Amino acid sequence: MTSHPHGKAGPADHARSVAEHLAAVTDLLARLAAESRAEVLPLTGALGRALVHGLLAPISLPPFDNSQMDGYAVRSVDISDGGADLRIMPPVPAGSSPQPLRPGTAAPIMTGAMIPAGADAVVPIEKAVPDHFRTEGSDGLVKLPATVPGTYVRTAGSDIAAGERAMAARTCLGPAQLGLLAALGMAEVEVYRAVTVLLVTTGDEVVQPGQPLPQGKIYDSNGTLLEAAMKQAGLNVRRTGISTDNPAELQALLRTAGHDVDLIVTTGGVSKGAYEVVRQAMADQPAEFLHVAMQPGGPQGIGLFDGVPFLGFPGNPVSCLVSFEMFLRPALSGLLGSPAARQPLRGRLAQPLESPGHKHQVRRGSLQRDGTVQLEGGEGSHLMHALAGSNCLVHVPVGVTELAAGDEVEVWML
Amino acid sequence: MTSHPHGKAGPADHARSVAEHLAAVTDLLARLAAESRAEVLPLTGALGRALVHGLLAPISLPPFDNSQMDGYAVRSVDISDGGADLRIMPPVPAGSSPQPLRPGTAAPIMTGAMIPAGADAVVPIEKAVPDHFRTEGSDGLVKLPATVPGTYVRTAGSDIAAGERAMAARTCLGPAQLGLLAALGMAEVEVYRAVTVLLVTTGDEVVQPGQPLPQGKIYDSNGTLLEAAMKQAGLNVRRTGISTDNPAELQALLRTAGHDVDLIVTTGGVSKGAYEVVRQAMADQPAEFLHVAMQPGGPQGIGLFDGVPFLGFPGNPVSCLVSFEMFLRPALSGLLGSPAARQPLRGRLAQPLESPGHKHQVRRGSLQRDGTVQLEGGEGSHLMHALAGSNCLVHVPVGVTELAAGDEVEVWML
Repeated sequence: MTSHPHGKAGPADHARSVAEHLAAVTDLLARLAAESRAEVLPLTGALGRALVHGLLAPISLPPFDNSQMDGYAVRSVDISDGGADLRIMPPVPAGSSPQPLRPGTAAPIMTGAMIPAGADAVVPIEKAVPDHFRTEGSDGLVKLPATVPGTYVRTAGSDIAAGERAMAARTCLGPAQLGLLAALGMAEVEVYRAVTVLLVTTGDEVVQPGQPLPQGKIYDSNGTLLEAAMKQAGLNVRRTGISTDNPAELQALLRTAGHDVDLIVTTGGVSKGAYEVVRQAMADQPAEFLHVAMQPGGPQGIGLFDGVPFLGFPGNPVSCLVSFEMFLRPALSGLLGSPAARQPLRGRLAQPLESPGHKHQVRRGSLQRDGTVQLEGGEGSHLMHALAGSNCLVHVPVGVTELAAGDEVEVWML
Repeated sequence: MTSHPHGKAGPADHARSVAEHLAAVTDLLARLAAESRAEVLPLTGALGRALVHGLLAPISLPPFDNSQMDGYAVRSVDISDGGADLRIMPPVPAGSSPQPLRPGTAAPIMTGAMIPAGADAVVPIEKAVPDHFRTEGSDGLVKLPATVPGTYVRTAGSDIAAGERAMAARTCLGPAQLGLLAALGMAEVEVYRAVTVLLVTTGDEVVQPGQPLPQGKIYDSNGTLLEAAMKQAGLNVRRTGISTDNPAELQALLRTAGHDVDLIVTTGGVSKGAYEVVRQAMADQPAEFLHVAMQPGGPQGIGLFDGVPFLGFPGNPVSCLVSFEMFLRPALSGLLGSPAARQPLRGRLAQPLESPGHKHQVRRGSLQRDGTVQLEGGEGSHLMHALAGSNCLVHVPVGVTELAAGDEVEVWML
């Protein structure tokens, strides 16, 4: 057992704020936003990635005036208040490039089809007499009511005009954003490369799921939890086996598996106990171990291991997920636009809670349809079953020591 | 041009409710919930899939009483109100199986380590004198304050007890749920197979992104939008090229590419206009084309094509996404548990809106941090740029014709 250099692991001494640690993590990872890390991908390959550069619309949407209804394209001046009988012209299907519309005529037009030159409105088919398109040719007459210019016409550029900003740099590309790029005619897009993480769980007490469980030991849930969270966030994840509490073994493992990754994340071994393998393995590296004024997830490691950015998360699973959501996700989100930041929402507590006033407390909860938040489990960072029953993180800021049922809180949907 | 069989495409005649159409889509896809569609996957391969069967906890969590702090494991009866000097025993690291604690002694214990038999509480190191672990061996004394039994002890089964239900059937497996399975020692899990969709966009007016755009034509955004939405929801997507408006060509394309898929989804060609390729291609199939009392996304096709379940979405991109979110996603979610259902939330409108009272209107919006909902774009189903600037769908139920700024609405985060 090593001696304890600082004596106390008290909660508040020298603790860094959540915002300060997020800034430090962002600084550590700033190199990931280099333009050299851009790549060009086909649209659907870019799902979940973020734009390197803002984009201007190369064309207008819609590209041309088109009909919002199946009906007749008309010149509104041709129809008096009492209506008018107009001669039926050849139809205008979607995709065609129609002839100009001559005075006194009406052209059957389908939804999305280009408005003929001269026409300025569309009369829906159900307001026409007869109220259906004719099969017998184009030489008949149709009676149509008076129509205000512009009726049922989607004008060119009414969604976005050519040259306008279509999307900002660092926009995260979901289905709607990719759909917009397609609508603008783009087949590929320049995005940031995915971030590759080496994920290492540590601890002599930790056993791989599927193996027998000796007395006093627990299964490794951190690895699965964080790998899944990182994959869901679009990161590439490399796993090693579980590291023992031997610092030399952990160093060897990081050197073997971590030479070409963007980031090393470890779990466990960062607090002020007697056996802290990550602290010990990082002893000769430019890395620091500190306490963030947050519960859970207070003990954190940050620095470089052989020049590779390193984050040391604590050993309990809830602390791991909270560390990921509070620091790694928002840092990447701010730098690269991907993964998308969690949307902060408001909820009303279903029950009271207490919180240490000098820490930012992160509880787990279920935001209900009616806006109330049911807390799941207590404060304990080992409560994996309660976490699995939650749909959100509940934030209790520094300075708040208790909240009553009905009080508003900020929540982040998971 | 074909004649129009029904004359009017009026909004309300014979329209099906949203709930009725969702029930029909669910019926169509019920076969996907067959047990024969289960497969066993390693945990992280099951991200986004859903459990076939409910699971009981094979072990308790925590598996054994363990320490919540770095400190001393004690028998609380050994310490009187004034404190006591106890003999220091060999330390208990996490992962070890400790000796029973004899009366009058205290064992240094690390967070997560098993509480020795006989001990019933933990005194944190910072309350001990000396307040740090000793390096000079185990024969010294430590002065500890009186402690209530159970203090800083995480009892076995306090998160979940062996035999309790850990997760219900059809739970969608995100990071926390997979982490729980790992904590319970499971290395693999039985989930429903991913659903494979053949996605076909149709229309003579539609051009592949990246190609030149002739006058009167538009780029296909539906394909990219829906492929991305389906992939994000965990579906396998197979794409074909864009189908022309020739029904025989569409039939040939579906027969070539669709024989072994779980579902065919088309876009366009389902309304009551004169050129409706999907309706025409399905003429001899058990499929119907109807109007759902919803805006946008009213015209819908549903049935079987050569025995394969078929859904025909409308041709505008916003209608496509709304059709996916209102029918396909919730149907799969209800049947299989995956993708997860959208969480309904409440927001307050930032501006007034109008809605056709006989339809369920789905607007696009941005839910803000303060709970207000900013509408993005108007009602038009072609407004792709507005959709890309939205983060939620805004629901205006049947029977509501107008809402004022500040009124509450249900929103679904995208």
